[in-house]
Amino acid sequence: MDKLTIIKVGGKVVEEPESLDALLTQFNKVSGNKILVHGGGRTATEIAGRLGIETKMVDGRRITDAAMLEVVTMVYGGLVNKRIVAQLQAQNCNAIGLTGADLDLIRAKKRPVKDIDYGFVGDVDEVNSSELRLLINENIIPVIAPLTHDGNGNLLNTNADTIASELATELAGHFSVYLFYCFEKRGVLTNPDDESSVIYDLDISLFNKYKNEGVISEGMIPKLENGFNAKLKGVKEVLITNAENIATGRGTRLV
Amino acid sequence: MDKLTIIKVGGKVVEEPESLDALLTQFNKVSGNKILVHGGGRTATEIAGRLGIETKMVDGRRITDAAMLEVVTMVYGGLVNKRIVAQLQAQNCNAIGLTGADLDLIRAKKRPVKDIDYGFVGDVDEVNSSELRLLINENIIPVIAPLTHDGNGNLLNTNADTIASELATELAGHFSVYLFYCFEKRGVLTNPDDESSVIYDLDISLFNKYKNEGVISEGMIPKLENGFNAKLKGVKEVLITNAENIATGRGTRLV
Repeated sequence: MDKLTIIKVGGKVVEEPESLDALLTQFNKVSGNKILVHGGGRTATEIAGRLGIETKMVDGRRITDAAMLEVVTMVYGGLVNKRIVAQLQAQNCNAIGLTGADLDLIRAKKRPVKDIDYGFVGDVDEVNSSELRLLINENIIPVIAPLTHDGNGNLLNTNADTIASELATELAGHFSVYLFYCFEKRGVLTNPDDESSVIYDLDISLFNKYKNEGVISEGMIPKLENGFNAKLKGVKEVLITNAENIATGRGTRLV
Repeated sequence: MDKLTIIKVGGKVVEEPESLDALLTQFNKVSGNKILVHGGGRTATEIAGRLGIETKMVDGRRITDAAMLEVVTMVYGGLVNKRIVAQLQAQNCNAIGLTGADLDLIRAKKRPVKDIDYGFVGDVDEVNSSELRLLINENIIPVIAPLTHDGNGNLLNTNADTIASELATELAGHFSVYLFYCFEKRGVLTNPDDESSVIYDLDISLFNKYKNEGVISEGMIPKLENGFNAKLKGVKEVLITNAENIATGRGTRLV
Protein backbone atom coordinates (compact mmCIF):
# COMPACT_ATOMS: atom_id res chain seq x y z
CA MET A 1 0.00 0.00 0.00
CA ASP A 2 1.08 3.59 -0.67
CA LYS A 3 2.25 5.65 2.25
CA LEU A 4 0.00 8.47 3.54
CA THR A 5 1.10 10.92 6.23
CA ILE A 6 -1.62 12.66 8.24
CA ILE A 7 -0.33 15.62 10.20
CA LYS A 8 -2.49 17.22 12.86
CA VAL A 9 -1.35 20.64 13.90
CA GLY A 10 -2.80 22.82 16.62
CA GLY A 11 -2.00 25.21 19.40
CA LYS A 12 0.29 28.17 18.88
CA VAL A 13 1.76 26.57 15.76
CA VAL A 14 -1.25 27.56 13.62
CA GLU A 15 -2.02 30.83 15.38
CA GLU A 16 1.18 32.77 14.87
CA PRO A 17 2.16 33.70 11.30
CA GLU A 18 5.87 32.86 11.77
CA SER A 19 5.31 29.43 13.31
CA LEU A 20 2.61 28.60 10.74
CA ASP A 21 4.99 29.56 7.99
CA ALA A 22 7.74 27.35 9.48
CA LEU A 23 5.29 24.46 9.83
CA LEU A 24 4.10 24.69 6.23
CA THR A 25 7.70 24.73 4.99
CA GLN A 26 8.37 21.50 6.92
CA PHE A 27 5.03 20.04 5.80
CA ASN A 28 6.05 20.64 2.21
CA LYS A 29 9.20 18.53 2.81
CA VAL A 30 7.14 15.46 3.79
CA SER A 31 7.25 13.27 0.71
CA GLY A 32 4.34 11.35 -0.77
CA ASN A 33 0.62 11.55 -0.02
CA LYS A 34 -0.31 13.76 2.88
CA ILE A 35 -3.19 15.42 4.71
CA LEU A 36 -3.06 18.37 7.10
CA VAL A 37 -5.66 18.53 9.90
CA HIS A 38 -5.69 21.80 11.83
CA GLY A 39 -7.16 23.27 14.99
CA GLY A 40 -7.51 26.97 15.64
CA GLY A 41 -8.95 27.21 19.12
CA ARG A 42 -7.26 30.33 20.36
CA THR A 43 -8.13 32.26 17.19
CA ALA A 44 -11.77 31.25 17.72
CA THR A 45 -11.57 32.43 21.34
CA GLU A 46 -10.08 35.74 20.24
CA ILE A 47 -12.69 36.40 17.49
CA ALA A 48 -15.50 35.29 19.83
CA GLY A 49 -14.25 37.77 22.42
CA ARG A 50 -14.26 40.59 19.88
CA LEU A 51 -17.86 39.63 18.98
CA GLY A 52 -18.84 39.72 22.64
CA ILE A 53 -19.32 35.95 22.81
CA GLU A 54 -18.01 34.30 25.95
CA THR A 55 -15.82 31.19 25.62
CA LYS A 56 -16.65 28.35 28.01
CA MET A 57 -14.37 25.32 28.20
CA VAL A 58 -14.87 22.08 30.17
CA ASP A 59 -11.82 19.79 30.43
CA GLY A 60 -10.24 21.58 27.50
CA ARG A 61 -13.34 21.12 25.32
CA ARG A 62 -15.27 24.09 23.96
CA ILE A 63 -18.94 24.52 24.84
CA THR A 64 -20.45 25.34 21.44
CA ASP A 65 -23.76 27.18 21.54
CA ALA A 66 -25.34 28.56 18.34
CA ALA A 67 -23.29 31.78 18.46
CA MET A 68 -20.03 29.88 19.07
CA LEU A 69 -20.87 27.48 16.22
CA GLU A 70 -21.02 30.51 13.90
CA VAL A 71 -17.61 31.60 15.20
CA VAL A 72 -15.91 28.22 14.76
CA THR A 73 -17.48 27.83 11.31
CA MET A 74 -16.01 31.19 10.33
CA VAL A 75 -12.63 30.73 12.00
CA TYR A 76 -11.88 27.04 11.42
CA GLY A 77 -13.67 26.63 8.07
CA GLY A 78 -12.82 30.08 6.72
CA LEU A 79 -10.00 32.09 8.24
CA VAL A 80 -7.53 29.41 9.37
CA ASN A 81 -8.31 26.86 6.67
CA LYS A 82 -8.17 29.20 3.67
CA ARG A 83 -5.06 30.99 4.91
CA ILE A 84 -3.26 27.65 5.11
CA VAL A 85 -4.50 26.70 1.64
CA ALA A 86 -3.33 30.00 0.10
CA GLN A 87 0.08 29.66 1.76
CA LEU A 88 0.50 26.07 0.58
CA GLN A 89 -0.44 27.12 -2.96
CA ALA A 90 2.34 29.73 -2.75
CA GLN A 91 4.72 26.81 -2.12
CA ASN A 92 3.40 24.96 -5.20
CA CYS A 93 1.53 22.51 -3.02
CA ASN A 94 -1.90 21.91 -4.57
CA ALA A 95 -4.01 22.14 -1.41
CA ILE A 96 -7.77 21.96 -0.98
CA GLY A 97 -9.51 23.06 2.20
CA LEU A 98 -12.30 20.84 3.50
CA THR A 99 -14.61 20.38 6.45
CA GLY A 100 -16.43 17.16 7.30
CA ALA A 101 -19.50 18.49 5.44
CA ASP A 102 -17.62 18.79 2.14
CA LEU A 103 -17.91 15.59 0.10
CA ASP A 104 -19.95 14.19 3.04
CA LEU A 105 -16.54 13.37 4.48
CA ILE A 106 -17.36 13.09 8.20
CA ARG A 107 -20.81 12.58 9.67
CA ALA A 108 -21.28 13.10 13.37
CA LYS A 109 -24.00 13.08 15.98
CA LYS A 110 -24.63 15.98 18.33
CA ARG A 111 -23.21 14.88 21.67
CA PRO A 112 -26.01 13.73 24.00
CA VAL A 113 -26.47 15.92 27.08
CA LYS A 114 -25.42 14.12 30.26
CA ASP A 115 -23.81 16.14 33.04
CA ILE A 116 -22.67 18.78 30.57
CA ASP A 117 -24.39 20.24 27.52
CA TYR A 118 -21.56 20.72 25.03
CA GLY A 119 -24.00 22.21 22.52
CA PHE A 120 -23.18 21.78 18.82
CA VAL A 121 -20.30 19.36 19.37
CA GLY A 122 -20.23 16.29 17.15
CA ASP A 123 -19.10 12.76 17.98
CA VAL A 124 -17.96 11.07 14.78
CA ASP A 125 -20.29 8.44 13.34
CA GLU A 126 -18.79 7.71 9.96
CA VAL A 127 -15.92 8.72 7.70
CA ASN A 128 -16.65 8.44 3.98
CA SER A 129 -13.27 8.63 2.28
CA SER A 130 -14.05 7.64 -1.31
CA GLU A 131 -13.84 11.14 -2.84
CA LEU A 132 -11.02 12.10 -0.49
CA ARG A 133 -8.97 9.19 -1.85
CA LEU A 134 -9.74 10.33 -5.37
CA LEU A 135 -8.20 13.72 -4.50
CA ILE A 136 -5.18 12.12 -2.81
CA ASN A 137 -4.58 9.94 -5.85
CA GLU A 138 -4.52 13.11 -7.97
CA ASN A 139 -1.69 14.47 -5.76
CA ILE A 140 -4.00 17.02 -4.16
CA ILE A 141 -3.28 17.84 -0.50
CA PRO A 142 -6.40 17.99 1.70
CA VAL A 143 -6.35 20.55 4.52
CA ILE A 144 -9.08 19.64 6.98
CA ALA A 145 -10.84 21.91 9.48
CA PRO A 146 -12.31 20.44 12.70
CA LEU A 147 -15.96 20.64 11.65
CA THR A 148 -18.34 17.78 10.89
CA HIS A 149 -22.01 17.64 9.89
CA ASP A 150 -25.05 15.66 10.98
CA GLY A 151 -26.58 14.95 7.57
CA ASN A 152 -29.56 17.16 8.44
CA GLY A 153 -27.94 20.42 7.39
CA ASN A 154 -26.17 21.23 10.65
CA LEU A 155 -22.46 21.73 11.11
CA LEU A 156 -20.89 20.47 14.33
CA ASN A 157 -17.67 21.29 16.15
CA THR A 158 -15.40 18.24 16.51
CA ASN A 159 -11.99 18.05 18.17
CA ALA A 160 -9.16 18.15 15.63
CA ASP A 161 -7.21 15.30 17.30
CA THR A 162 -10.30 13.13 16.93
CA ILE A 163 -10.76 14.14 13.28
CA ALA A 164 -7.13 13.16 12.61
CA SER A 165 -7.38 9.75 14.28
CA GLU A 166 -10.76 8.96 12.70
CA LEU A 167 -9.40 9.82 9.25
CA ALA A 168 -6.27 7.78 9.97
CA THR A 169 -8.17 4.64 10.97
CA GLU A 170 -10.55 4.90 8.00
CA LEU A 171 -7.70 5.45 5.55
CA ALA A 172 -5.59 2.65 7.10
CA GLY A 173 -7.67 0.27 4.96
CA HIS A 174 -6.33 1.96 1.82
CA PHE A 175 -2.89 3.37 2.69
CA SER A 176 0.01 2.69 5.00
CA VAL A 177 -0.89 5.56 7.36
CA TYR A 178 1.55 7.60 9.45
CA LEU A 179 -0.26 9.84 11.94
CA PHE A 180 1.70 12.77 13.40
CA TYR A 181 0.40 15.01 16.15
CA CYS A 182 2.37 18.22 15.88
CA PHE A 183 2.45 20.78 18.68
CA GLU A 184 4.90 23.14 20.39
CA LYS A 185 7.09 20.50 22.14
CA ARG A 186 9.52 17.95 20.74
CA GLY A 187 7.35 15.11 22.01
CA VAL A 188 5.75 13.88 25.23
CA LEU A 189 8.02 15.14 27.99
CA THR A 190 8.54 13.65 31.47
CA ASN A 191 9.40 17.19 32.57
CA PRO A 192 7.38 19.89 30.76
CA ASP A 193 10.18 22.43 31.35
CA ASP A 194 12.90 20.23 29.86
CA GLU A 195 12.77 19.72 26.09
CA SER A 196 15.40 16.98 26.39
CA SER A 197 13.09 14.80 28.50
CA VAL A 198 11.29 13.38 25.46
CA ILE A 199 9.85 9.88 25.89
CA TYR A 200 10.93 8.34 22.58
CA ASP A 201 8.97 5.09 22.82
CA LEU A 202 5.69 5.08 24.65
CA ASP A 203 3.66 1.89 25.13
CA ILE A 204 0.27 1.60 26.76
CA SER A 205 1.57 0.39 30.14
CA LEU A 206 4.10 3.22 30.37
CA PHE A 207 1.34 5.64 29.32
CA ASN A 208 -0.92 4.35 32.13
CA LYS A 209 1.93 4.60 34.64
CA TYR A 210 2.73 8.21 33.67
CA LYS A 211 -0.97 9.08 33.60
CA ASN A 212 -1.46 7.72 37.15
CA GLU A 213 1.64 9.57 38.34
CA GLY A 214 0.41 12.82 36.76
CA VAL A 215 3.49 13.04 34.48
CA ILE A 216 1.14 12.97 31.48
CA SER A 217 -1.89 15.16 32.06
CA GLU A 218 -4.62 17.39 30.63
CA GLY A 219 -4.94 17.68 26.83
CA MET A 220 -2.16 15.14 26.23
CA ILE A 221 -4.31 12.31 27.67
CA PRO A 222 -7.13 12.31 25.05
CA LYS A 223 -4.51 12.96 22.33
CA LEU A 224 -2.58 9.84 23.32
CA GLU A 225 -5.76 7.81 23.81
CA ASN A 226 -6.79 8.77 20.27
CA GLY A 227 -3.31 7.79 19.11
CA PHE A 228 -3.26 4.36 20.80
CA ASN A 229 -6.76 3.73 19.47
CA ALA A 230 -5.58 4.54 15.94
CA LYS A 231 -2.60 2.13 16.33
CA LEU A 232 -4.98 -0.64 17.44
CA LYS A 233 -7.10 -0.01 14.35
CA GLY A 234 -4.27 -0.46 11.86
CA VAL A 235 -2.49 2.89 11.66
CA LYS A 236 1.15 2.03 11.02
CA GLU A 237 2.82 4.71 13.09
CA VAL A 238 1.73 7.42 15.54
CA LEU A 239 4.18 10.16 16.44
CA ILE A 240 3.92 13.19 18.75
CA THR A 241 6.36 15.89 17.73
CA ASN A 242 6.94 19.54 16.85
CA ALA A 243 6.99 21.35 13.50
CA GLU A 244 10.78 21.04 13.08
CA ASN A 245 10.58 17.24 13.24
CA ILE A 246 7.65 16.30 11.06
CA ALA A 247 9.98 15.69 8.13
CA THR A 248 12.66 13.91 10.25
CA GLY A 249 10.17 11.73 12.18
CA ARG A 250 11.82 12.31 15.60
CA GLY A 251 9.61 12.56 18.66
CA THR A 252 7.45 10.31 20.83
CA ARG A 253 6.50 7.14 19.00
CA LEU A 254 3.54 5.08 20.22
CA VAL A 255 4.51 1.41 20.32
CA MET B 1 -20.57 18.56 -24.95
CA ASP B 2 -22.24 17.89 -21.62
CA LYS B 3 -24.42 20.61 -20.16
CA LEU B 4 -23.16 22.52 -17.12
CA THR B 5 -25.31 25.04 -15.26
CA ILE B 6 -23.52 27.72 -13.22
CA ILE B 7 -25.82 29.51 -10.82
CA LYS B 8 -24.66 32.66 -9.10
CA VAL B 9 -26.71 33.65 -6.12
CA GLY B 10 -26.40 36.75 -4.02
CA GLY B 11 -28.26 39.41 -2.15
CA LYS B 12 -30.99 38.59 0.33
CA VAL B 13 -31.41 35.13 -1.20
CA VAL B 14 -28.32 33.79 0.61
CA GLU B 15 -28.66 35.85 3.76
CA GLU B 16 -32.04 34.77 5.06
CA PRO B 17 -32.45 31.13 6.15
CA GLU B 18 -35.90 30.70 4.52
CA SER B 19 -34.92 32.13 1.15
CA LEU B 20 -31.64 30.17 1.15
CA ASP B 21 -33.56 27.01 1.89
CA ALA B 22 -35.97 27.72 -0.97
CA LEU B 23 -33.07 28.44 -3.31
CA LEU B 24 -31.26 25.21 -2.47
CA THR B 25 -34.45 23.21 -3.03
CA GLN B 26 -34.74 24.74 -6.52
CA PHE B 27 -31.00 24.30 -7.13
CA ASN B 28 -31.38 20.61 -6.38
CA LYS B 29 -34.02 20.36 -9.14
CA VAL B 30 -31.59 21.60 -11.80
CA SER B 31 -30.56 18.44 -13.62
CA GLY B 32 -27.06 17.53 -14.73
CA ASN B 33 -23.71 19.09 -13.86
CA LYS B 34 -23.91 22.27 -11.83
CA ILE B 35 -21.92 24.80 -9.83
CA LEU B 36 -23.19 27.28 -7.25
CA VAL B 37 -21.33 30.59 -6.85
CA HIS B 38 -22.44 32.68 -3.89
CA GLY B 39 -21.99 36.18 -2.49
CA GLY B 40 -22.65 37.11 1.09
CA GLY B 41 -22.03 40.81 1.26
CA ARG B 42 -24.60 41.87 3.82
CA THR B 43 -23.55 39.09 6.22
CA ALA B 44 -19.96 40.34 5.94
CA THR B 45 -21.16 43.89 6.63
CA GLU B 46 -23.09 42.69 9.68
CA ILE B 47 -20.18 40.64 11.13
CA ALA B 48 -17.73 43.48 10.39
CA GLY B 49 -20.01 45.87 12.26
CA ARG B 50 -20.10 43.57 15.29
CA LEU B 51 -16.27 43.43 15.18
CA GLY B 52 -16.11 47.23 15.08
CA ILE B 53 -14.85 47.27 11.48
CA GLU B 54 -16.38 49.93 9.27
CA THR B 55 -17.71 48.94 5.85
CA LYS B 56 -16.78 51.26 3.00
CA MET B 57 -18.30 50.76 -0.44
CA VAL B 58 -17.50 52.58 -3.70
CA ASP B 59 -19.96 52.02 -6.58
CA GLY B 60 -21.27 48.91 -4.85
CA ARG B 61 -17.76 47.46 -4.43
CA ARG B 62 -16.32 46.74 -1.00
CA ILE B 63 -13.09 48.44 0.06
CA THR B 64 -11.13 45.54 1.55
CA ASP B 65 -8.41 46.49 4.00
CA ALA B 66 -6.57 43.81 6.01
CA ALA B 67 -9.25 43.67 8.72
CA MET B 68 -12.04 43.42 6.14
CA LEU B 69 -10.13 40.68 4.28
CA GLU B 70 -10.21 38.64 7.51
CA VAL B 71 -13.96 39.22 7.74
CA VAL B 72 -14.74 38.20 4.14
CA THR B 73 -12.45 35.16 4.46
CA MET B 74 -14.40 34.09 7.54
CA VAL B 75 -17.84 34.94 6.22
CA TYR B 76 -17.61 33.98 2.53
CA GLY B 77 -15.14 31.09 2.86
CA GLY B 78 -16.45 29.80 6.19
CA LEU B 79 -19.89 30.77 7.41
CA VAL B 80 -21.88 31.16 4.18
CA ASN B 81 -20.00 28.54 2.14
CA LYS B 82 -20.05 25.74 4.71
CA ARG B 83 -23.68 26.35 5.68
CA ILE B 84 -24.69 25.95 2.05
CA VAL B 85 -22.57 22.78 1.74
CA ALA B 86 -24.11 21.23 4.88
CA GLN B 87 -27.62 22.07 3.68
CA LEU B 88 -26.99 20.60 0.23
CA GLN B 89 -25.59 17.43 1.82
CA ALA B 90 -28.86 17.16 3.78
CA GLN B 91 -30.61 17.07 0.36
CA ASN B 92 -28.30 14.27 -0.83
CA CYS B 93 -26.43 16.66 -3.05
CA ASN B 94 -22.70 15.88 -2.77
CA ALA B 95 -21.38 19.43 -2.47
CA ILE B 96 -17.85 20.68 -1.92
CA GLY B 97 -17.09 24.24 -0.84
CA LEU B 98 -14.20 25.99 -2.56
CA THR B 99 -12.51 29.35 -2.86
CA GLY B 100 -10.22 30.39 -5.70
CA ALA B 101 -7.22 29.33 -3.57
CA ASP B 102 -8.39 25.72 -3.31
CA LEU B 103 -6.99 23.61 -6.15
CA ASP B 104 -5.34 26.83 -7.40
CA LEU B 105 -8.71 27.43 -9.05
CA ILE B 106 -8.62 31.21 -9.56
CA ARG B 107 -5.51 33.39 -9.51
CA ALA B 108 -5.94 37.13 -9.31
CA LYS B 109 -3.88 40.29 -9.06
CA LYS B 110 -4.42 42.88 -6.34
CA ARG B 111 -6.21 45.73 -8.07
CA PRO B 112 -3.77 48.56 -8.88
CA VAL B 113 -4.46 51.79 -7.01
CA LYS B 114 -5.69 54.56 -9.31
CA ASP B 115 -8.26 57.02 -7.97
CA ILE B 116 -9.43 54.53 -5.37
CA ASP B 117 -7.49 52.02 -3.26
CA TYR B 118 -9.78 48.99 -3.13
CA GLY B 119 -7.29 47.18 -0.89
CA PHE B 120 -7.20 43.38 -1.08
CA VAL B 121 -9.51 43.13 -4.06
CA GLY B 122 -8.46 40.76 -6.82
CA ASP B 123 -8.89 41.10 -10.58
CA VAL B 124 -8.94 37.63 -12.11
CA ASP B 125 -5.83 36.59 -14.03
CA GLU B 126 -6.40 32.92 -14.68
CA VAL B 127 -8.90 30.14 -14.06
CA ASN B 128 -7.38 26.67 -13.77
CA SER B 129 -10.29 24.26 -14.09
CA SER B 130 -8.59 20.87 -14.51
CA GLU B 131 -9.27 19.57 -10.99
CA LEU B 132 -12.66 21.29 -10.90
CA ARG B 133 -13.66 19.32 -13.99
CA LEU B 134 -12.47 16.14 -12.33
CA LEU B 135 -14.87 16.84 -9.44
CA ILE B 136 -17.74 17.71 -11.81
CA ASN B 137 -17.19 14.49 -13.73
CA GLU B 138 -17.53 12.61 -10.41
CA ASN B 139 -20.99 14.21 -9.92
CA ILE B 140 -19.68 16.44 -7.15
CA ILE B 141 -21.31 19.89 -6.90
CA PRO B 142 -18.82 22.74 -6.33
CA VAL B 143 -20.02 25.63 -4.17
CA ILE B 144 -17.72 28.58 -4.75
CA ALA B 145 -17.06 31.55 -2.46
CA PRO B 146 -16.00 34.91 -3.93
CA LEU B 147 -12.35 34.73 -2.88
CA THR B 148 -9.29 34.33 -5.08
CA HIS B 149 -5.55 34.16 -4.37
CA ASP B 150 -2.45 35.80 -5.78
CA GLY B 151 -0.12 32.78 -5.79
CA ASN B 152 2.04 34.42 -3.12
CA GLY B 153 -0.01 33.25 -0.17
CA ASN B 154 -2.55 36.07 -0.10
CA LEU B 155 -6.29 35.70 -0.42
CA LEU B 156 -8.17 38.41 -2.31
CA ASN B 157 -11.79 39.53 -2.38
CA THR B 158 -13.34 39.17 -5.85
CA ASN B 159 -16.88 40.03 -6.90
CA ALA B 160 -19.08 36.92 -7.13
CA ASP B 161 -20.64 37.94 -10.47
CA THR B 162 -17.13 38.14 -11.91
CA ILE B 163 -16.17 34.75 -10.45
CA ALA B 164 -19.27 33.23 -12.07
CA SER B 165 -18.61 34.71 -15.50
CA GLU B 166 -14.88 33.86 -15.42
CA LEU B 167 -15.68 30.25 -14.49
CA ALA B 168 -18.35 30.14 -17.19
CA THR B 169 -16.04 31.36 -19.96
CA GLU B 170 -13.22 28.99 -18.90
CA LEU B 171 -15.56 26.01 -18.69
CA ALA B 172 -17.26 26.88 -22.01
CA GLY B 173 -14.32 25.11 -23.66
CA HIS B 174 -15.32 21.85 -21.96
CA PHE B 175 -19.08 22.03 -21.39
CA SER B 176 -22.17 23.60 -22.89
CA VAL B 177 -22.44 26.26 -20.18
CA TYR B 178 -25.66 27.88 -18.93
CA LEU B 179 -24.94 30.84 -16.64
CA PHE B 180 -27.77 31.99 -14.35
CA TYR B 181 -27.59 35.10 -12.21
CA CYS B 182 -30.13 34.59 -9.45
CA PHE B 183 -31.35 37.47 -7.27
CA GLU B 184 -34.58 38.70 -5.68
CA LYS B 185 -36.43 39.76 -8.86
CA ARG B 186 -37.89 37.71 -11.70
CA GLY B 187 -35.43 39.26 -14.16
CA VAL B 188 -34.30 42.65 -15.38
CA LEU B 189 -37.30 44.93 -14.92
CA THR B 190 -38.19 48.10 -16.83
CA ASN B 191 -40.00 49.21 -13.68
CA PRO B 192 -38.32 48.05 -10.45
CA ASP B 193 -41.68 48.14 -8.61
CA ASP B 194 -43.47 45.96 -11.14
CA GLU B 195 -42.46 42.30 -11.21
CA SER B 196 -44.42 41.83 -14.44
CA SER B 197 -42.16 44.29 -16.31
CA VAL B 198 -39.50 41.62 -17.01
CA ILE B 199 -37.44 42.16 -20.16
CA TYR B 200 -37.44 38.59 -21.53
CA ASP B 201 -34.93 39.08 -24.32
CA LEU B 202 -32.15 41.59 -23.85
CA ASP B 203 -29.61 42.29 -26.58
CA ILE B 204 -26.64 44.62 -26.34
CA SER B 205 -28.29 47.55 -28.14
CA LEU B 206 -31.39 47.38 -25.94
CA PHE B 207 -29.08 47.13 -22.91
CA ASN B 208 -27.22 50.28 -23.99
CA LYS B 209 -30.50 52.11 -24.61
CA TYR B 210 -31.89 51.21 -21.16
CA LYS B 211 -28.54 52.03 -19.55
CA ASN B 212 -28.50 55.49 -21.15
CA GLU B 213 -32.12 56.09 -20.11
CA GLY B 214 -31.33 55.01 -16.52
CA VAL B 215 -33.85 52.13 -16.70
CA ILE B 216 -30.97 49.72 -15.97
CA SER B 217 -28.70 51.09 -13.27
CA GLU B 218 -26.30 50.44 -10.39
CA GLY B 219 -25.29 46.81 -9.65
CA MET B 220 -27.24 45.47 -12.62
CA ILE B 221 -24.87 47.19 -15.08
CA PRO B 222 -21.65 45.26 -14.22
CA LYS B 223 -23.72 42.08 -13.84
CA LEU B 224 -25.07 42.43 -17.38
CA GLU B 225 -21.69 43.49 -18.75
CA ASN B 226 -20.20 40.32 -17.23
CA GLY B 227 -23.05 38.36 -18.77
CA PHE B 228 -22.68 39.78 -22.29
CA ASN B 229 -18.93 39.24 -22.06
CA ALA B 230 -19.51 35.58 -21.13
CA LYS B 231 -21.89 35.17 -24.12
CA LEU B 232 -19.24 36.60 -26.45
CA LYS B 233 -16.73 34.10 -25.07
CA GLY B 234 -18.79 31.03 -25.84
CA VAL B 235 -21.20 30.63 -22.90
CA LYS B 236 -24.36 29.15 -24.41
CA GLU B 237 -26.97 30.96 -22.39
CA VAL B 238 -27.03 33.74 -19.79
CA LEU B 239 -30.18 34.23 -17.73
CA ILE B 240 -31.08 36.72 -14.98
CA THR B 241 -33.81 35.36 -12.73
CA ASN B 242 -34.98 34.59 -9.20
CA ALA B 243 -34.76 31.42 -7.10
CA GLU B 244 -38.20 30.15 -8.13
CA ASN B 245 -37.21 30.13 -11.80
CA ILE B 246 -33.74 28.60 -11.89
CA ALA B 247 -35.23 25.21 -12.65
CA THR B 248 -37.81 26.55 -15.15
CA GLY B 249 -35.35 28.84 -16.95
CA ARG B 250 -37.75 31.82 -17.10
CA GLY B 251 -36.32 35.33 -16.72
CA THR B 252 -34.22 37.78 -18.70
CA ARG B 253 -32.23 36.03 -21.41
CA LEU B 254 -29.21 37.75 -22.94
CA VAL B 255 -29.35 37.41 -26.72
